[in-house]
Amino acid sequence: MGSDKIQPRTLKGFRDLTPEMMIPREGIVAAAKGVYESFGFSPIDTPALEYTEILLGKGGAETDKQLYRFTDNGGRDVALRFDLTIPFARFAAQHIGSLGTPFKRYHVGPVWRGENTQRGRYREFVQCDFDTIGTTSIVADTESTLVIHDLFVALGFERFSVRLNNRKVLSGVLECLDLADQAENVLRALDKLAKIGPEKVTAEMVSTAGCSEAQAAEVLALAAITGDNAAILTALEPLVGHSKQGQQGLAELTAVLEGVQAAGVAEGRVRLDLSIARGLDYYTGTVFETFLDDLEGIGSCCSGGRYDDLASLYTKQALPGVGASLGVDRLLAAMEELGMLEGRAASAPVFLAFFDAERASDYVALAARLRAAGVGVELYPEPRKLGAQLKYADRRGHRLAIIVGPDEWKAGCCQLKDLDAKTSDEVALDDLASVCLQRLG
Amino acid sequence: MGSDKIQPRTLKGFRDLTPEMMIPREGIVAAAKGVYESFGFSPIDTPALEYTEILLGKGGAETDKQLYRFTDNGGRDVALRFDLTIPFARFAAQHIGSLGTPFKRYHVGPVWRGENTQRGRYREFVQCDFDTIGTTSIVADTESTLVIHDLFVALGFERFSVRLNNRKVLSGVLECLDLADQAENVLRALDKLAKIGPEKVTAEMVSTAGCSEAQAAEVLALAAITGDNAAILTALEPLVGHSKQGQQGLAELTAVLEGVQAAGVAEGRVRLDLSIARGLDYYTGTVFETFLDDLEGIGSCCSGGRYDDLASLYTKQALPGVGASLGVDRLLAAMEELGMLEGRAASAPVFLAFFDAERASDYVALAARLRAAGVGVELYPEPRKLGAQLKYADRRGHRLAIIVGPDEWKAGCCQLKDLDAKTSDEVALDDLASVCLQRLG
Repeated sequence: MGSDKIQPRTLKGFRDLTPEMMIPREGIVAAAKGVYESFGFSPIDTPALEYTEILLGKGGAETDKQLYRFTDNGGRDVALRFDLTIPFARFAAQHIGSLGTPFKRYHVGPVWRGENTQRGRYREFVQCDFDTIGTTSIVADTESTLVIHDLFVALGFERFSVRLNNRKVLSGVLECLDLADQAENVLRALDKLAKIGPEKVTAEMVSTAGCSEAQAAEVLALAAITGDNAAILTALEPLVGHSKQGQQGLAELTAVLEGVQAAGVAEGRVRLDLSIARGLDYYTGTVFETFLDDLEGIGSCCSGGRYDDLASLYTKQALPGVGASLGVDRLLAAMEELGMLEGRAASAPVFLAFFDAERASDYVALAARLRAAGVGVELYPEPRKLGAQLKYADRRGHRLAIIVGPDEWKAGCCQLKDLDAKTSDEVALDDLASVCLQRLG
Repeated sequence: MGSDKIQPRTLKGFRDLTPEMMIPREGIVAAAKGVYESFGFSPIDTPALEYTEILLGKGGAETDKQLYRFTDNGGRDVALRFDLTIPFARFAAQHIGSLGTPFKRYHVGPVWRGENTQRGRYREFVQCDFDTIGTTSIVADTESTLVIHDLFVALGFERFSVRLNNRKVLSGVLECLDLADQAENVLRALDKLAKIGPEKVTAEMVSTAGCSEAQAAEVLALAAITGDNAAILTALEPLVGHSKQGQQGLAELTAVLEGVQAAGVAEGRVRLDLSIARGLDYYTGTVFETFLDDLEGIGSCCSGGRYDDLASLYTKQALPGVGASLGVDRLLAAMEELGMLEGRAASAPVFLAFFDAERASDYVALAARLRAAGVGVELYPEPRKLGAQLKYADRRGHRLAIIVGPDEWKAGCCQLKDLDAKTSDEVALDDLASVCLQRLG
């Protein structure tokens, strides 16, 4: 490369997506949008850049360090959003008066965090959130659970589970253990159970949360309760016994499970999991995480819960709600690891070889006719050798290839190759659209 | 608002999109993606942030001033992209070896420019580009023209035109007028014709481009040639007479028009317009702009053309290509002005009132059954008064509302209200999904 050229490169922690990765990512986002919309969540958008004071809010030094923050040409202190929740809180505070409640929104967009880069973690990644605000009804929690369930089904997963818990149940149990005042630190420690194991969690509960060894053991025993949902509910009853909060949490979990069952969801797909605390978050009721049975280690691919007040930083109006965030890029990584990506770069299923240089307009017209019938067709732009064209089609992952040479034009027919099955048939041009539609299912 | 609250606000020149605007914008983007994919353009993504040296390239002081540029926490000089073309050039230089040519990509994403804000202009806006690179074949120009045509049809426009010209024709004519050396300044002046009128264009041609009055008059006479495509081609022939470049441009225009006609496009939809120069751009062959007949003043909503080399700043490999950029936000503004937006905030067409507090799970189950049959349903989360719920549904723009009270649950039926037609029918719950599908078309 000559020294007068600028080296083409991306920033550390950032990446390009070529079609092989972008097509499945678009598929994930499209599936999410489809499911969100089928439940009545409407799309919104907010700017990538916000006043820094909006984003920092009560945030601490950690957030500050990761923020892409600068002074714009107008002298404003601005920063790129690091999630979609805070912009939504600001949006809700600003617009809820005209929007009214309940308000159900989804939002898909990139967020930026200057984190230390790790395998599979990027400084720019796509989030895909949905929330129902302005209602405390448990029906919204039930439907949020169904949204997550339906989404993973829509994505083609069979072996996954939405794991449910309720912060009120946890608080109730802690109340019974005389740990109500230390609840935050206890839950923060409990949240690390999957990552660091019971011994270290016990140690943290003792050192940081001021638990006795016996109290820590009881909390861990709670998280270790297993069985089907009914068994867990039964086991919980005595543990929350005299706590009003605990009883309410139990009633909420019961209501969500009843609703989910009424909607026809198989029991294994939505399960109680008392180890889920989401300790670092501001949730106050239902909490959920979602795990792939075949790749638990990748962590929760869709997490969220119920909160008492979304936008208290910006408005006095209390905005309770429930929602969750789909980790699009984590899910994409999981699907790649599970071999669920087809690796196709072609967005049109059919390839039309350009074979007879004299017939440019005929090829253009044939492609247009097929598209008008609903068949996506990529026409190769140059009359190159057929072998090179078919190699291109193979590499890109087209499913069918149409070959029309001078003789076929005269005879009104073509060769239709199935590039996956490696078969070939002669098809009349008049029948081509319907044959393609049939072959493509 | 208490003084402890942070004022919820967006930055000057930035905006939130509520569902009423976001739903149609998503519709535009979805239509564009659908058409692009039907021609075999595949999606890519690139980071919002790039090294500043990548973006500045040979750019001048104007671009520099508008750039959101800063030093990141790692000390890198970075900036937000101001278009999708330069990132694509960088992307192509970096990846074309493994991607191969021809390469057809589309890219939808926000870009940022710190421009002075004007009515309808924002500092963050969405672009939606498609390009075919790695081929000089005129078939790619023809198909690009068809992409634009099909896109505006898909968006529901009937009265629009894609305006075609060819820079080689303009250059050929200038060559015949002995203005070849001043071509750039002449075309830059010509490009302002629609904005500033013929007198000021003449003045600029004389003062800046060094034309004689007579030469300027001849250039303006060229731009004033009207008639159908065949008449314009005929009129052009003597004007480019002895210029090789002009003849080639004429042959290219003829080929594109033939292809477009063969594809069945009505003549008025794709028209020659010799006043289109796109003077400030780097185009070298076909150029196109797209105008709405009913709102010409808003300017071109989709513009582009053919270029000789996309990525010369970053690589020695010549990457000729052709493409265009859809102005999503300009089009959205146009559709709003033309009354083409429905103003619906509801993303699910059907509203299910929550009427009988004892039956929460039954409502959840009914909504789930309808969704499983392909009917988008929003369930109101609380058993509020029916009037309030229907007001909500009306305001949000749901098309149908389902009302099931205690008696209806027992009888296995419901009231189905058509909220647009203001009619109501009793429908058996067993038939509800099929009736909804039929009503929604």
